[in-house]
Amino acid sequence: MTPEQTLVDAALRSWRSNMDRASKFFGSLTPEELELEVAPARNRLIYIWGHLTALNDAILPLFVFGQRRYPELDDTFISAVDHAVLQIPSGPELKQIWAELDLVLWAEFQKLSPSEWLQRHQSIFPEDFVREPHRNRYASLLGRTAHLAYHYGQAILAKRRPRQGVKSTERLSG
Amino acid sequence: MTPEQTLVDAALRSWRSNMDRASKFFGSLTPEELELEVAPARNRLIYIWGHLTALNDAILPLFVFGQRRYPELDDTFISAVDHAVLQIPSGPELKQIWAELDLVLWAEFQKLSPSEWLQRHQSIFPEDFVREPHRNRYASLLGRTAHLAYHYGQAILAKRRPRQGVKSTERLSG
Repeated sequence: MTPEQTLVDAALRSWRSNMDRASKFFGSLTPEELELEVAPARNRLIYIWGHLTALNDAILPLFVFGQRRYPELDDTFISAVDHAVLQIPSGPELKQIWAELDLVLWAEFQKLSPSEWLQRHQSIFPEDFVREPHRNRYASLLGRTAHLAYHYGQAILAKRRPRQGVKSTERLSG
Repeated sequence: MTPEQTLVDAALRSWRSNMDRASKFFGSLTPEELELEVAPARNRLIYIWGHLTALNDAILPLFVFGQRRYPELDDTFISAVDHAVLQIPSGPELKQIWAELDLVLWAEFQKLSPSEWLQRHQSIFPEDFVREPHRNRYASLLGRTAHLAYHYGQAILAKRRPRQGVKSTERLSG
């Protein structure tokens, strides 16, 4: 691997590891558990899962991988707060969509060369990208990975046994 | 910037942005707020802040920047669960240590070249690093950044007004 490839590889591994733990966590929840809130009067687990799914779907056009597959998720999980929309996808439905998007994104990620990772994403105009070349696909992937970790940290509060300390809930790379 | 430098720059920006929002959040809490738990019977804010501080301190030897400055934090914030140790640093004390470590880490991070980022960190033996070159400083920085985001996502649950939806609590890069 060239140094560029090794740097890209690190970000892909970080995405993979954060996606895997989220998939494992959300995918194993019962319908009752998906209704749990992460803290009193906060988002339900199903809402957080749907939110992350909608944002993953939005990576498709952002990174020029293709059109969105599930744009209808936004009305429920991005534009609206939790509980505002009554009719929402079920756990099994989200699980299927989540898994499909995970596969397609992962396949597309593998195809990008380091220089393609450094190209602009679609929420910045070409003329702005000239001045702000840090707004590239790669930076966006890092941001999405941190965003996953942020919500995963919240999600596990709903389910795990209280008072375990921080240690058992973290994953540090090493 | 070379492609390698741009890739390193993206990770540094991600670290910076996650550190900045954590600094702003924790640094503005009152002593009473620092005693709040992120969810019922979960970690207090002061504990999470101390935990992140101890882990930042541990980056010094991990990345060969120098010896630890506050190894005593581990007994309270890493080895022990919250509430297990009664005598813990105050908010102002943590704030000072947090800021000092932020400055020294940030200064050291700037000095590393891309190839130095790809060198092993100190929790892997040289002979293992030959087989597992992905266990480098850079990967570790990405892991630490996700870890920061994970706990920040929890921390804001303690303080913010309930039922704001996910949108207002996230930060996506773009």
